[in-house]
Amino acid sequence: MNASASIGVTGLGVMGRNLARNFARNGYTVAVHNRSAGRTRALVDEFGHEGSFVPAETAEEFVAALARPRRLMIMVQAGAATDAVIDEFAPLLENGDMIIDGGNAHFADTRRREAALRERGLHFVGAGISGGEEGALNGPSIMPGGSAESYAVLGPMFESISAKVDGEPCATHIGTDGAGHFVKMVHNGIEYADMQLIAEAYDLLRQVAGYSPAEIADVFRTWNEGRLGSYLVEITAEVLAHTDPHTGGAFVDIVDDAAGQKGTGRWTVQTALDLASPVTAIAQATFARAASGQSDLRAAYRGLPGGTTPPLSRTEAARFTAQVEHALYASKVIAYDQGWKMILDAAAEYGWKIDLGSVARIWRGGCIIRASFLDRIRAAYATDPDLVSLLAEDGFAQEISDAQVPWREIVASAARRGIPVPAFSAALSHYDTLRADRLPAALLQGQRDYFGAHTYRRTDREGSFHTHWSQPDRPETTA
Amino acid sequence: MNASASIGVTGLGVMGRNLARNFARNGYTVAVHNRSAGRTRALVDEFGHEGSFVPAETAEEFVAALARPRRLMIMVQAGAATDAVIDEFAPLLENGDMIIDGGNAHFADTRRREAALRERGLHFVGAGISGGEEGALNGPSIMPGGSAESYAVLGPMFESISAKVDGEPCATHIGTDGAGHFVKMVHNGIEYADMQLIAEAYDLLRQVAGYSPAEIADVFRTWNEGRLGSYLVEITAEVLAHTDPHTGGAFVDIVDDAAGQKGTGRWTVQTALDLASPVTAIAQATFARAASGQSDLRAAYRGLPGGTTPPLSRTEAARFTAQVEHALYASKVIAYDQGWKMILDAAAEYGWKIDLGSVARIWRGGCIIRASFLDRIRAAYATDPDLVSLLAEDGFAQEISDAQVPWREIVASAARRGIPVPAFSAALSHYDTLRADRLPAALLQGQRDYFGAHTYRRTDREGSFHTHWSQPDRPETTA
Repeated sequence: MNASASIGVTGLGVMGRNLARNFARNGYTVAVHNRSAGRTRALVDEFGHEGSFVPAETAEEFVAALARPRRLMIMVQAGAATDAVIDEFAPLLENGDMIIDGGNAHFADTRRREAALRERGLHFVGAGISGGEEGALNGPSIMPGGSAESYAVLGPMFESISAKVDGEPCATHIGTDGAGHFVKMVHNGIEYADMQLIAEAYDLLRQVAGYSPAEIADVFRTWNEGRLGSYLVEITAEVLAHTDPHTGGAFVDIVDDAAGQKGTGRWTVQTALDLASPVTAIAQATFARAASGQSDLRAAYRGLPGGTTPPLSRTEAARFTAQVEHALYASKVIAYDQGWKMILDAAAEYGWKIDLGSVARIWRGGCIIRASFLDRIRAAYATDPDLVSLLAEDGFAQEISDAQVPWREIVASAARRGIPVPAFSAALSHYDTLRADRLPAALLQGQRDYFGAHTYRRTDREGSFHTHWSQPDRPETTA
Repeated sequence: MNASASIGVTGLGVMGRNLARNFARNGYTVAVHNRSAGRTRALVDEFGHEGSFVPAETAEEFVAALARPRRLMIMVQAGAATDAVIDEFAPLLENGDMIIDGGNAHFADTRRREAALRERGLHFVGAGISGGEEGALNGPSIMPGGSAESYAVLGPMFESISAKVDGEPCATHIGTDGAGHFVKMVHNGIEYADMQLIAEAYDLLRQVAGYSPAEIADVFRTWNEGRLGSYLVEITAEVLAHTDPHTGGAFVDIVDDAAGQKGTGRWTVQTALDLASPVTAIAQATFARAASGQSDLRAAYRGLPGGTTPPLSRTEAARFTAQVEHALYASKVIAYDQGWKMILDAAAEYGWKIDLGSVARIWRGGCIIRASFLDRIRAAYATDPDLVSLLAEDGFAQEISDAQVPWREIVASAARRGIPVPAFSAALSHYDTLRADRLPAALLQGQRDYFGAHTYRRTDREGSFHTHWSQPDRPETTA
């Protein structure tokens, strides 16, 4: 066997198989390997005509098939399975070879693995890959971390198989070590927020405007033509327009309303807490899924009184729908801004240099949150790469200014009517918190100093101070 | 040296010293030890007259001073310092001896330590202790985990030094292994929510009702006489009434409005995410502190437009204040309910048997969140120990029913006026989410099935299903 393959993929589940086919279709010779050889043979039997595959039964054969520096991509379950495969292959590799983890690893695991393999002279590249099965085959969004040296070799390959938007590939070097998996995690956190915001908009249109699922599908189709245009809005219309073949009713009405989750939203919020980065819309979206599955709690609360929901006229409903569009868009800008700031905060913490405009660019295609809106974000960073917030850009600031009154009306109306809008209202509170001249956090600091002598800072002089609360005449001390 | 001490305390920082004095004042002979002997001598010199202390310079002397089964309390920093002290003392102890960790350990560390020491025949008791320096000396709230066997020995001692309310001690056996530190963590999470809710109420009274800090202090003093009566409301009045001696203005106005945190709120939310337990008011409180410290983000948002805040007449302000009281009380009930459910969810996960009524009972005194309200919770569980939620009890349900209209008005009004109320609105969304007949989580499940083939459940039959979204005529499959 000659070492001819540009890349090897081990782990031929649906994601691994589709990525291998994508590489092959793009002209790369791809070594393929799986723990049980049946999947390897099946891939070559079924899709061998699509390109140049080198099937390998053993680990040694697999490694021997790879051209140097060897590029070995792991597509197995995150966690212990990934460590096991690394332990199996690392001893067979040589200085300068590259292991790519294309799974959904936690970025902290990626940092640990990268450091350990770097010590052994190997490159370890944690690459976030978004777009599901379809994307893996036809063009995903790819977020690789690891060394710049590894990206010099791998970059052209990733860019080749990635989605393209306006001729630009949806792949870029995110940053060193775990930066790629970190950014993929935040992508998924934003996806949670985006989906929850859409769900709240749907709920309002259904319960307040009184629209049917089919009518709401039309609303989303219209919105998809405008600034909300995105894959998630597009498929929302499809889901809402779908008729259940069994009942003949709206599909959405026969689906159990307990949402599942696979954990990346949770990771995002947990990590944001460590970074003290306020991702409240993502947090509320994650907890909303959890709440929907709390069946005993829902049983306990059911029947408690709500607000009043007087029906709207058709004219009022149309006006309300326009307000919901503003609220959805403004909340979405905030959710993205939270994710962007979290990436900035992590970059400061972990010493990553991340080009935030490029992140927006590679999310325009291939991934679940792809949206026309991301091109706006890309453009904003092209103008000012040091933006701390999307809202520091004139265009977004203007849109939020235009949206804020209807946004406030929608949150107020939902509160009065008893429709839960955890993400809409978290986004609005985030906006109002950050634009406030003074926050009641000052009172908190007073309380903390009172009961725990935690000290406070003053607005009029430097230092930390403590008031002797039980001794009114004793002067404030400098801590 | 004869083995006469009922308990030993090592680590004589202010918490350890005060606990040692509390034991001694209650008639126990207390061995005292510190890494540097100066603190040990200082304690005996200064407070030796308060009771019977046995100062020990070395670890061996310290252990030799303890009556069997030896009870050795560690009062050092959580984390590596605690492990180091355990490693130092465990080899000197014998079967059946007890190590008590009275620090702020993460419950997962406590579980790990308990399991390791149990293997060596030692009892390890993670005991949450709330009440700060004052409480440690005069009566804290004590939440011990560990074995029932250890509590049989330690319980009377803890109960003796704890705060008392209506003659009942604020100490009880919480549950096995890490249950004590877990419940202490949730206590602190609830404390974060309680403080944030108070801060939001203050902000509304200041900015909407137009009251001065001194006037708001009076409002809180009045509230402290009613159902909101609590230590935190009481000290809020004190902080707001305090005049800054340097400027002659209100103290709260010279305090920097960036809130600090020591991490237990963060732990609570991170753990709740693992448990899929929706603690949204606690999460929003934790993120509100983080947001207040995001100075670059605040600079970027400052100046963005807000709502309108027409001034209120004195009559309107009084009416508004009454509405805020309802909103604060209702939100507080929700925040506590979130904490209570989180304890239930953890008990199911970790196999703890936790008497939730007892938790309410021992929080009535000694700790930061002590409140008359906790006696209501105790009583509710006395009537029905299996309550899934406080709102399943008639009294709380009635109060929430009475509060919900003004609560809604306050959240709506804050949204319109541009006052951030992240915790008030998260609590209201929690209420409206859980009481909803149908949640838009059904749409989420449709989206997830569409883009990721994650499958969904149906309301009308058992099983998991997948729709072939790109093939309209292909029947739904059972997964």
